[in-house]
Amino acid sequence: MEEKTYSYKPFERMVNYYETDRMGIVHHSNYIRYFEECRMDLFDQLGLDYVAMEEQGVMIPVLKVECEYRLPARFHDRIRIVPKIEKYSGIIFRISYEIIDVETGELHNTGWSEHCFINNHFKPVIIKREIPEIHKVLSDLEGVDLLSLDKMAE
Amino acid sequence: MEEKTYSYKPFERMVNYYETDRMGIVHHSNYIRYFEECRMDLFDQLGLDYVAMEEQGVMIPVLKVECEYRLPARFHDRIRIVPKIEKYSGIIFRISYEIIDVETGELHNTGWSEHCFINNHFKPVIIKREIPEIHKVLSDLEGVDLLSLDKMAE
Amino acid sequence: MEEKTYSYKPFERMVNYYETDRMGIVHHSNYIRYFEECRMDLFDQLGLDYVAMEEQGVMIPVLKVECEYRLPARFHDRIRIVPKIEKYSGIIFRISYEIIDVETGELHNTGWSEHCFINNHFKPVIIKREIPEIHKVLSDLEGVDLLSLDKMAE
Amino acid sequence: MEEKTYSYKPFERMVNYYETDRMGIVHHSNYIRYFEECRMDLFDQLGLDYVAMEEQGVMIPVLKVECEYRLPARFHDRIRIVPKIEKYSGIIFRISYEIIDVETGELHNTGWSEHCFINNHFKPVIIKREIPEIHKVLSDLEGVDLLSLDKMAE
Repeated sequence: MEEKTYSYKPFERMVNYYETDRMGIVHHSNYIRYFEECRMDLFDQLGLDYVAMEEQGVMIPVLKVECEYRLPARFHDRIRIVPKIEKYSGIIFRISYEIIDVETGELHNTGWSEHCFINNHFKPVIIKREIPEIHKVLSDLEGVDLLSLDKMAE
Repeated sequence: MEEKTYSYKPFERMVNYYETDRMGIVHHSNYIRYFEECRMDLFDQLGLDYVAMEEQGVMIPVLKVECEYRLPARFHDRIRIVPKIEKYSGIIFRISYEIIDVETGELHNTGWSEHCFINNHFKPVIIKREIPEIHKVLSDLEGVDLLSLDKMAE
Repeated sequence: MEEKTYSYKPFERMVNYYETDRMGIVHHSNYIRYFEECRMDLFDQLGLDYVAMEEQGVMIPVLKVECEYRLPARFHDRIRIVPKIEKYSGIIFRISYEIIDVETGELHNTGWSEHCFINNHFKPVIIKREIPEIHKVLSDLEGVDLLSLDKMAE
Repeated sequence: MEEKTYSYKPFERMVNYYETDRMGIVHHSNYIRYFEECRMDLFDQLGLDYVAMEEQGVMIPVLKVECEYRLPARFHDRIRIVPKIEKYSGIIFRISYEIIDVETGELHNTGWSEHCFINNHFKPVIIKREIPEIHKVLSDLEGVDLLSLDKMAE
């Protein structure tokens, strides 16, 4: 396969009112959803079309997720999520996430999620064979600091 | 079709912590979800199998929903939802809901939702022909006070 | 009060995966949340600081909400929400919303929400006296097509 | 303190339609919410009043959460959640959870959450001094199989 040039800029969004709870902070379950938003945005930025993938019958469920809460985010805070493809075995991949306050630079959360590839019958799929472009991207970017990509591209 | 005897008891549940927002009350969007819980429970109690229905390729999306907020519910409140099949045209049906505080009897909310029947291609379905048992139940119970059913059955 | 110039551009966002349901479309309750996102963004664009307002002890709960579903939105769809301050009585205001597909221009949903102003004890607040800048904005923009504001400003 | 007798029965609930995603299964973030429901129910069953605790100014945020997904749950599945107080240091406690299908007995998920005690200013609280009854319950039940409690009580 030919050489591919990647670029990436971290995912940012505001905290919504409906994501807070009666403690006045973001409910802890919502960070798991923020991770997903960041992951889907990462796929977009890397040129992987998740919708098309599901239409071809490949889904990427979550096997395991972990989240460590440091500093609560609040309504209207602007957060930045920095992902990293920690490892990719050909069958399973793990993405880690850091959620940072855009204004203060403080670390809100860290976490990771582990995923595999399945078909519509929830059976494992050999992604290298089924969707080689995903295999290539995950292989190329395993362990890479995504924020350094643009510098590399220059 | 033979005579069918219905019975019904109102749906009850506790308010979850994650359903509150930073005002300290249930976020207003969640009552729309409570309506759905109540509606699915109603189907269960009336002997309609929604899962089987979807497997047969019939779905019941929401056409319109309205909710009026009177008294906020809070974490750990126990609420009762009383539904009523307000009208059924053969194509569209409307269910109204009253959400009542189990402890105090106060009215939290009122609302209603309107629905139709569609197939997997999102095209309208003639429910009388496709799933006559639903047609019968909706026809039988249109405008009926469901809380009076058990007395009728006696 | 001096003359104020407003500008506004419609709120846009992508549909998240976790907002879909097993019908493959956005769960109907989520549009109520999209309305809130749009409303908060509107406040931001009009220079109203909702966080500061709550810190001063004024909250803006929902009194009533309605949503009419036309065309389901799906994962990864980009939607635009166009709000309008339909009426403002000094005590209650109503905002309407149109959710439009950015790519196709098709109308997904219409709806509205009605709100009042309360203090921390959930008692009504005379907003004209408490936070006159909100009163002014709502009065100025009642019934105005927000998308025409930029043209007016020119 | 006098001897206290505990009893416990596992938390059960149905999967709601709005908790599914377009894969047709429960969205993975919702299990984190199920854990919370189970935890609050555990507090209830152990005679700990979480609402009163928050009114006294003590909150129990999540420090860390992990969830491992084995078998997806689907709409209308009835699930049982079995919690266990894995450890309690006087400052931090960890609860583990097993989510089991009521009908088939199969294991859907396992996970755990770690918590501390804070006051309204988000500062740590010495729970032994502030709310000794919680300290006692956590100490008494650390590492205990809650399902065996009723047998012990006999």
